[in-house]
Amino acid sequence: MSATNNRQIILREKPSGKLQPDQFGLVENALPEPQDGEILVRVLYISLDAANRAWMQGATYRAAVEPNSVMAGASIAEVVTSKAPNFAPGDIVFGDTGWQDFAVLPAKHLLKMPRIEPLTHLLSVYGIAGLTAYFGLLDIGRAQAGETVVVSAAAGSVGSLVGPIAKIKGCRVVGIAGGPEKCDWLTSHLGFDAAVDYKAGNLFHNLRAAVPSGIDVYFDNVGGDIFEACLALMNNHGRIACCGAVSQYDGSPSASGPRGVPGLIVVKRLTVQGFVVMDYFNQRERALADLQGWVASGKLKVEEDIINGLENTPAALIGLLAGENRGKRIVKV
Amino acid sequence: MSATNNRQIILREKPSGKLQPDQFGLVENALPEPQDGEILVRVLYISLDAANRAWMQGATYRAAVEPNSVMAGASIAEVVTSKAPNFAPGDIVFGDTGWQDFAVLPAKHLLKMPRIEPLTHLLSVYGIAGLTAYFGLLDIGRAQAGETVVVSAAAGSVGSLVGPIAKIKGCRVVGIAGGPEKCDWLTSHLGFDAAVDYKAGNLFHNLRAAVPSGIDVYFDNVGGDIFEACLALMNNHGRIACCGAVSQYDGSPSASGPRGVPGLIVVKRLTVQGFVVMDYFNQRERALADLQGWVASGKLKVEEDIINGLENTPAALIGLLAGENRGKRIVKV
Repeated sequence: MSATNNRQIILREKPSGKLQPDQFGLVENALPEPQDGEILVRVLYISLDAANRAWMQGATYRAAVEPNSVMAGASIAEVVTSKAPNFAPGDIVFGDTGWQDFAVLPAKHLLKMPRIEPLTHLLSVYGIAGLTAYFGLLDIGRAQAGETVVVSAAAGSVGSLVGPIAKIKGCRVVGIAGGPEKCDWLTSHLGFDAAVDYKAGNLFHNLRAAVPSGIDVYFDNVGGDIFEACLALMNNHGRIACCGAVSQYDGSPSASGPRGVPGLIVVKRLTVQGFVVMDYFNQRERALADLQGWVASGKLKVEEDIINGLENTPAALIGLLAGENRGKRIVKV
Repeated sequence: MSATNNRQIILREKPSGKLQPDQFGLVENALPEPQDGEILVRVLYISLDAANRAWMQGATYRAAVEPNSVMAGASIAEVVTSKAPNFAPGDIVFGDTGWQDFAVLPAKHLLKMPRIEPLTHLLSVYGIAGLTAYFGLLDIGRAQAGETVVVSAAAGSVGSLVGPIAKIKGCRVVGIAGGPEKCDWLTSHLGFDAAVDYKAGNLFHNLRAAVPSGIDVYFDNVGGDIFEACLALMNNHGRIACCGAVSQYDGSPSASGPRGVPGLIVVKRLTVQGFVVMDYFNQRERALADLQGWVASGKLKVEEDIINGLENTPAALIGLLAGENRGKRIVKV
């Protein structure tokens, strides 16, 4: 590597199907010069994430990566030249430098990191992957001792941390991964209680056998058919921590399956929470007091659609399903 | 109606497609006799709910309604004969009496209600519909003044309460309903700020025009394509209160669309919450302290998959997407 040239990986085109090597190119350019408030860094470790692929699809929690630009990516880097306060040559930083030897970034886009050994831990257990596993499992998933946790892409960067953290918390942990070797590795090496090979077919059947008490927390990294299989095995009041949808990143979105779910749920930080009103009966006094007050004051109009005659009940329901009613439909027997 | 005969509506067969009138039958039977601990009631008002149809499909939050049994349904009823303490003739009760003139139920399955005028309010604004609208909008949806609320089946029993309650709370409210008359009614009569006719086509386009600031709370009664359209228009940190999936009750489930979503989310009271880890950076110190402790003590193994050479980055990502890595994949530049 020349000390004065900067090699850059360019994304040449937006992939429409599976990502291909020839969709990238390598170019060399002169070393960029930092302006006031900017920092020149030498990239040390680039983080690779399934999300990289998602960035090519369009805007997510960040703008899309456009064709013929340097491929985006987070890395651990070392400051070479600083034209901003608080940064000095030799400092270790984290930022979206892109896939290149050197990068110039505004200081505000860089996060100073401790110089620990090994530095790579800043991208794994102390980086995005570790924080994702931690908060996803404990804050979003609210995993409790004795519960069953399932994680997909269990052998991946996040999944391989989710399983052990869940074990630390006293959960039973089942991993979903591709191929018998990975599955053996999960149980023999990482301490998962069980592992299911989604490539072996019969995912639902095999997963059900692996979670005899159902699933309390599903840590979803993949979306698609695996999301759907887990959904069907969730226990009441279960939590699904939607972390990613890697199954939907590479190639065209599938025509079936839970379209838009959970991809949009992730990106938009949605809370999708099912409920059955009977669960709230113990709080109904408060609701009734408000409702009665609103009705009494005329703020709340009450709409009712009253049908006479028990014999008209089937037709009344059929009509309701066809949308003919307005307000609350009731049969007066 | 004879005072000594009990007319009953029977569900003759489990409907596989759209519900048909000939799938019901009317029979007459002798008046049932209450045993100790039971109550004979005369049914006054039967509540009709889209959920009735769902009950025919299979188990939900209650057992399925089986063919050749009295169709299930909640009602307001009056006690005729009581063989249990705390209930006396003339008392007004709420319970799942089914679709019949008289019913015998265990006392514990009946809820005593105040004798208010009109009694029908016990099934609408003070009943399941009102409580559903209230808790769904305010507890699950957490609607705040100034936010945009969208409700589907807006002219229905729940939707027609959701809109006005949201207005009371200072929200902007958009209803989705079928046909121009209903839509006019929503805005002119119920005070909705706007209404979108899903039968007019171009739902996404029309809805987007009606929510220039996006959707903060979507109160979902229907699932399916409307759920999907709203999903795409949700604002970050939006809330979807999944209340029902009426579009999926009558007829075969659609092959596409968000299968299993939100039907299962409702029934299982799931919390499906997307997240992006950057949102948690302000809490990372706590996570790092735990993680460092676990690594130091050996409880947490750190898995890394380090690739050498910037030039290998594309292949490394492609391999990652193909699932070849274990643990955190990193490129050492």
